[in-house]
Amino acid sequence: MSKAIRVTVWNEFRHEKDHESVRAVYPDGIHEAIGAYLRGQEFTVRTATLDEPEHGLTEAVLAETDVLIWWGHLAHGEVSDAIVDRVQGRVLNGMGLVVLHSGHFSKIFKRLMGTSCDLKWREANERERIWVVAPGHPIAEGLGEYFELPQEEMYGEYFDIPEPDALVFVSWFQGGEVFRSGCCYQRGQGKIFYFRPGHETHPTYYNPDVLRVIGNSVRWAAPSNNPPVSFGNRPNPLETLG
Amino acid sequence: MSKAIRVTVWNEFRHEKDHESVRAVYPDGIHEAIGAYLRGQEFTVRTATLDEPEHGLTEAVLAETDVLIWWGHLAHGEVSDAIVDRVQGRVLNGMGLVVLHSGHFSKIFKRLMGTSCDLKWREANERERIWVVAPGHPIAEGLGEYFELPQEEMYGEYFDIPEPDALVFVSWFQGGEVFRSGCCYQRGQGKIFYFRPGHETHPTYYNPDVLRVIGNSVRWAAPSNNPPVSFGNRPNPLETLG
Amino acid sequence: MSKAIRVTVWNEFRHEKDHESVRAVYPDGIHEAIGAYLRGQEFTVRTATLDEPEHGLTEAVLAETDVLIWWGHLAHGEVSDAIVDRVQGRVLNGMGLVVLHSGHFSKIFKRLMGTSCDLKWREANERERIWVVAPGHPIAEGLGEYFELPQEEMYGEYFDIPEPDALVFVSWFQGGEVFRSGCCYQRGQGKIFYFRPGHETHPTYYNPDVLRVIGNSVRWAAPSNNPPVSFGNRPNPLETLG
Amino acid sequence: MSKAIRVTVWNEFRHEKDHESVRAVYPDGIHEAIGAYLRGQEFTVRTATLDEPEHGLTEAVLAETDVLIWWGHLAHGEVSDAIVDRVQGRVLNGMGLVVLHSGHFSKIFKRLMGTSCDLKWREANERERIWVVAPGHPIAEGLGEYFELPQEEMYGEYFDIPEPDALVFVSWFQGGEVFRSGCCYQRGQGKIFYFRPGHETHPTYYNPDVLRVIGNSVRWAAPSNNPPVSFGNRPNPLETLG
Repeated sequence: MSKAIRVTVWNEFRHEKDHESVRAVYPDGIHEAIGAYLRGQEFTVRTATLDEPEHGLTEAVLAETDVLIWWGHLAHGEVSDAIVDRVQGRVLNGMGLVVLHSGHFSKIFKRLMGTSCDLKWREANERERIWVVAPGHPIAEGLGEYFELPQEEMYGEYFDIPEPDALVFVSWFQGGEVFRSGCCYQRGQGKIFYFRPGHETHPTYYNPDVLRVIGNSVRWAAPSNNPPVSFGNRPNPLETLG
Repeated sequence: MSKAIRVTVWNEFRHEKDHESVRAVYPDGIHEAIGAYLRGQEFTVRTATLDEPEHGLTEAVLAETDVLIWWGHLAHGEVSDAIVDRVQGRVLNGMGLVVLHSGHFSKIFKRLMGTSCDLKWREANERERIWVVAPGHPIAEGLGEYFELPQEEMYGEYFDIPEPDALVFVSWFQGGEVFRSGCCYQRGQGKIFYFRPGHETHPTYYNPDVLRVIGNSVRWAAPSNNPPVSFGNRPNPLETLG
Repeated sequence: MSKAIRVTVWNEFRHEKDHESVRAVYPDGIHEAIGAYLRGQEFTVRTATLDEPEHGLTEAVLAETDVLIWWGHLAHGEVSDAIVDRVQGRVLNGMGLVVLHSGHFSKIFKRLMGTSCDLKWREANERERIWVVAPGHPIAEGLGEYFELPQEEMYGEYFDIPEPDALVFVSWFQGGEVFRSGCCYQRGQGKIFYFRPGHETHPTYYNPDVLRVIGNSVRWAAPSNNPPVSFGNRPNPLETLG
Repeated sequence: MSKAIRVTVWNEFRHEKDHESVRAVYPDGIHEAIGAYLRGQEFTVRTATLDEPEHGLTEAVLAETDVLIWWGHLAHGEVSDAIVDRVQGRVLNGMGLVVLHSGHFSKIFKRLMGTSCDLKWREANERERIWVVAPGHPIAEGLGEYFELPQEEMYGEYFDIPEPDALVFVSWFQGGEVFRSGCCYQRGQGKIFYFRPGHETHPTYYNPDVLRVIGNSVRWAAPSNNPPVSFGNRPNPLETLG
């Protein structure tokens, strides 16, 4: 427990370069806003972005990553399948994965869910109220019964995901929709958390409750110290076959 | 499949006698409104109410009941523990149970859930929009993506229930809350469905979508033709102990 | 309810051609053994095999298939990705999928699970006892508390699958292992059932309990009559944004 | 994280007084065997037994308990309902509960599960092999792929419990049965873990793997630092009702 959890914050990092309105909110990129918060916690933090070699996710980086955070939107298709394979392999071997907002459509999230991960959406700067429906869950630690985001993009049901192992948050939207906003999954030895908020034109990743959830989810998704699993032929039975 | 599912609609049936405003909506009682719909389907229907002997739930009645529907509110405490034991036993042996609205606080639902089943509520005649979050589930059969109730009592999270085996509906309320409105559970050989809508002063149980959900849930909760389970000492092993 | 469920039994159909020992057990192929049973039930049945054009799974065939049964082993890699995409799409739109035995390593099952689907195995003609751990589940209908297969291939844990939505069977093996042998999943609008038994050198698909399970799983996995789901931009809120 | 988790080990403590064969194995009681291990870990440990006033579970003791461990067998009926109410209330407010072996039939476990919690059993000193089916779960931390107990009482399926939120262990028994041996539940804000082994005539609670699981389960079940939940009337909506 004394070793710091090693977090890699991955960001597509295109909106911030191409759109003035996004750069105004996240001048150093969404990854740096999230990273700055996590560095102020007990974590060891690095960042990685799409346009780095191997998208910044080399074997070496992933080997030293306990939890990977993922934000992407415009360029899901530019993420190479080889890197998706690599990340999936690490998750199945125990690495945690926290998928944020438009990351619902990333190759890695769709790969791990097996579904389309599609949803309804609207950009209308409306109010979102995120309700805690699992108040004993570690990811809800320190939150009140709900928290509000004054302006966010709407995501609405049906959200095409497997039924979560645990559902932590449900969002209410001013325009009339609801959304399963905090969803936990186990895949292999790895834990996955999907967290809805974070449209690039809103200062969502400066909100203290949103940041608290991200920090909590990193602690929750950090690997247990479990030995690797083995598979394959077992020619010798454990018991004598009579 | 050719034998009709036998439904017993149980209603506390006090509001309708004591409150003019409720009698105006349900002159023959909530059980008769629901029963009338179900009789128009392929089901065999009877009703039972609190003030009948054994609350109308004799051993004979339960033995002939495939699915029991439960509405109660004012007088949960008047339901005898012996009848609660009996109903619980039948559920564990395969009888389906559909719990409606304020039945969340009934003895039988709390008994089967193991939790307080408490929630937040408000009577303000506000709009409820019920979203389907499991569009392939048999209980959602024939529904659109959502349906609306123009005026309902609000129920809000946190709803103190076990995480459902399947979550079928989530409600949006005009006043700002959300609620897990359609929750499936297996307990023993029996299936349980909790369905939120149905405040006694609103004509909710005449709404075609609400009635469709109730009918669907009866079909879903009907027992499979599974043999009874046995328990206890098994002195003779199935394999030779070496 | 009156329309027959349309089943397509898909089989790789290579072992039966190439291995005398398999042909001796399944002279017309595993698909015909399963198909013969299903034709004796209330189903409409067709078969399809790997070496047919489009593996026998054309758009037209899938459009007329309510539940697809899948057996494969030697040649998972020869199934074209385009057909896997097509089957996945149909499952998400409601088609049921029953995956048998070595189909755990098929592209379509791995695609829908998001995990490696790996396991331990041994071919030692040992006894398997399949215990019902969900005795109220429709897939266990008509079974006793367990059933036995005198000789089967062993599959052992850890089986790298997502936690099932419902676990129906657990196998005991003579050699000392256990296995989660009957696993239910919902993906999109489609239901998926994985069922373990069925090594090609054993007459497992003539066993009445195994066949009963396959028939039950087809009934369970058949699509509800749910309308298709829609996704995408919803520029017009359902409520007035204040 | 720096505050020690406070564990109370509750034991019926009758077998050890009345049966020489049990006293020979656990001279100071099962609670002291488990307590000794936990005291050697990072926990703060106390014990409580049936024949103490209020069964040793006063309001004060429970208020200072983060995780309660429960072993009982002969005298479930002597546990007062008032204490069961009190323990249930604390679990719903966040206290962890680890139920061991014959505690499956305790009032508190049946209360929280809502089912009969019945099972099959045999005392034949047979071999048990406990397989890890959730190798990334914190409760499996540090274990191999399975561990063995040379002699144990058999518990067999069907075990009448709700489908676990997570299934961590499945037991293989020499006599031919299987059992879901490690079962996780969330109830209210509290986490519950049922762990099968521990018949009173076997030295199971000296086995290093069994003790490791108990320690792991205490860490897993310890409450998050979540604020209490509130319920009841909310006359003032969060949004203006139009």
